[in-house]
Amino acid sequence: MPRNQTKIEFIYEPIQEELAKVEENLRTLAGVCEAHLTGFLSHILPSQGKRVRPAVTILASRFHPNSGGAPVIMATAVELLHIASLVHDDTVDGSNLRRGIATVSSLWGRNVAVLLGDYVFATSATWVCDTEDVRVIRRFSETIMELSSGELMETVAAYSIEQNYEQYIERIYNKTASLFRTAGETGAVLSGIGEMEVKALTDYGYNIGMAFQIVDDILDFQGTEEEIGKPVGQDLLQGTLTLPAILLLKRYPNDNPVLELFQGEDREMNSKRAVEMVQNSTILAESYAVADQFRDKAIDAIKVLQSSRERESLQELAIYVTDRRW
Amino acid sequence: MPRNQTKIEFIYEPIQEELAKVEENLRTLAGVCEAHLTGFLSHILPSQGKRVRPAVTILASRFHPNSGGAPVIMATAVELLHIASLVHDDTVDGSNLRRGIATVSSLWGRNVAVLLGDYVFATSATWVCDTEDVRVIRRFSETIMELSSGELMETVAAYSIEQNYEQYIERIYNKTASLFRTAGETGAVLSGIGEMEVKALTDYGYNIGMAFQIVDDILDFQGTEEEIGKPVGQDLLQGTLTLPAILLLKRYPNDNPVLELFQGEDREMNSKRAVEMVQNSTILAESYAVADQFRDKAIDAIKVLQSSRERESLQELAIYVTDRRW
Repeated sequence: MPRNQTKIEFIYEPIQEELAKVEENLRTLAGVCEAHLTGFLSHILPSQGKRVRPAVTILASRFHPNSGGAPVIMATAVELLHIASLVHDDTVDGSNLRRGIATVSSLWGRNVAVLLGDYVFATSATWVCDTEDVRVIRRFSETIMELSSGELMETVAAYSIEQNYEQYIERIYNKTASLFRTAGETGAVLSGIGEMEVKALTDYGYNIGMAFQIVDDILDFQGTEEEIGKPVGQDLLQGTLTLPAILLLKRYPNDNPVLELFQGEDREMNSKRAVEMVQNSTILAESYAVADQFRDKAIDAIKVLQSSRERESLQELAIYVTDRRW
Repeated sequence: MPRNQTKIEFIYEPIQEELAKVEENLRTLAGVCEAHLTGFLSHILPSQGKRVRPAVTILASRFHPNSGGAPVIMATAVELLHIASLVHDDTVDGSNLRRGIATVSSLWGRNVAVLLGDYVFATSATWVCDTEDVRVIRRFSETIMELSSGELMETVAAYSIEQNYEQYIERIYNKTASLFRTAGETGAVLSGIGEMEVKALTDYGYNIGMAFQIVDDILDFQGTEEEIGKPVGQDLLQGTLTLPAILLLKRYPNDNPVLELFQGEDREMNSKRAVEMVQNSTILAESYAVADQFRDKAIDAIKVLQSSRERESLQELAIYVTDRRW
């Protein structure tokens, strides 16, 4: 068994039962909806991905004994929101595959994908309502706003080289870290723990989310198609400037394949050249150093919490997502 | 001044101040968002449409003195949800115009439209959260589910003649009457009125919504392009079977332009033929009779409420939306 496999089993070990309930909730949803939705929901809800976000919610709820059933409900909502956003992202990007599986838009067309995404967004919101906690519900709605605002920013800024590190950080907060932050924050709030601990778990979520997205952006330059489930260099081809590309532009401000690609010149060739230049430089290491900083901040953030098996899991999870090759 | 103009002024007269606040809320939203969203929001938020749904919410809140500021907040949320669904509908339909104004997808592309719709959906949800009423928030989420489920049903069933009256009724509840129902129900709930009155205003909303959509579907066969802001016969061209078309199929089950159109034969010609056949028959009158039944049920539903200027407005509104030519 590869080391990472052992590690994720160790991380999820204290919350196996709750994660199984989340899985069961998602599976059941495809069975109880109206007939014309069953086929679509059966395709997108079961066994996609690693369920990292719901794991954060459940682990974050374990630092106070009062949580009851709300964290599993919340974790289900968080994963539903993630799935809804993937359906719309794939539609916007025109992607045919997501982790090796055909996307909704490629199978049933973009119109179905738009409306199915809306349906799953709304379903996630009704799950949050079952927590009956207005603070949590509001945070959840704000997350959908930040998520779509981040994606819109990416779309509007496509093929523009006028994007600096600060804008990148803001954009990846919106598109990824916002939901991780909400996963941690809402798990904590629903457990009934104090505000200092809520802040610690909110900060944890924010920082692990930032690390997660930076690694995502690195893997687009470094991974193999087999590992990441899509061809490398896709971000550049779609005009998205991520951290490695920003560092490459800074290093070679004049003669740079990214400049040429964004001006529409021989995109395939220039994307390959950019990927090679990044791989043959210290840029990957520098990008990982940035991801590691966020990982370390995530680990530090929860040092104020009582030492526990769950805290160990959260800390190992931060390392796991930063080390991942998927 | 045309008669209808006088009538809508009479209907809105007791809630002018609140409707102005809703308008102000929508206008302000475009100013306070992140810079990359301002242009998009300024295009879709101000002065679109007649604000019928927020008017229902505010009027429905007037049968009990306890409402405070919540109904205006709710009315803003209801209109935002309506605007979000229009943005996605126009994207799905590929429409270039909405009441004579260029659609988001035609101006900035479908990707912007998908993500902007998401952003406005989420914005509407954060407004609902400001009511701090979990029952209202939950009803609102369910409405978004019903709305997208109805639109999905329409997309999935496109160009299928296997649709009967019952399925039509279910579909138009989902895509239109659900939000009208929610407009009435939430206005009533937020006013603190008793359950009997809440039910009356919920029923009112449901029935006026059904009448509204049936008239919409009739106008697609009857209106002029100038009146309805788009060419007539669009529903059939998009494969959507509405009440007049269902009645036409029932009357001429064998030789019918709708059958030929849905089989892909000369769509423009067959759409024109179907519109003519409907216009030269009693089908429009029969369709209006169905709309009138829902209108009358709306008017009857609120007879249990105390007689008041607001009740008169709601009753006149039911007549107004059924008589409209827009």
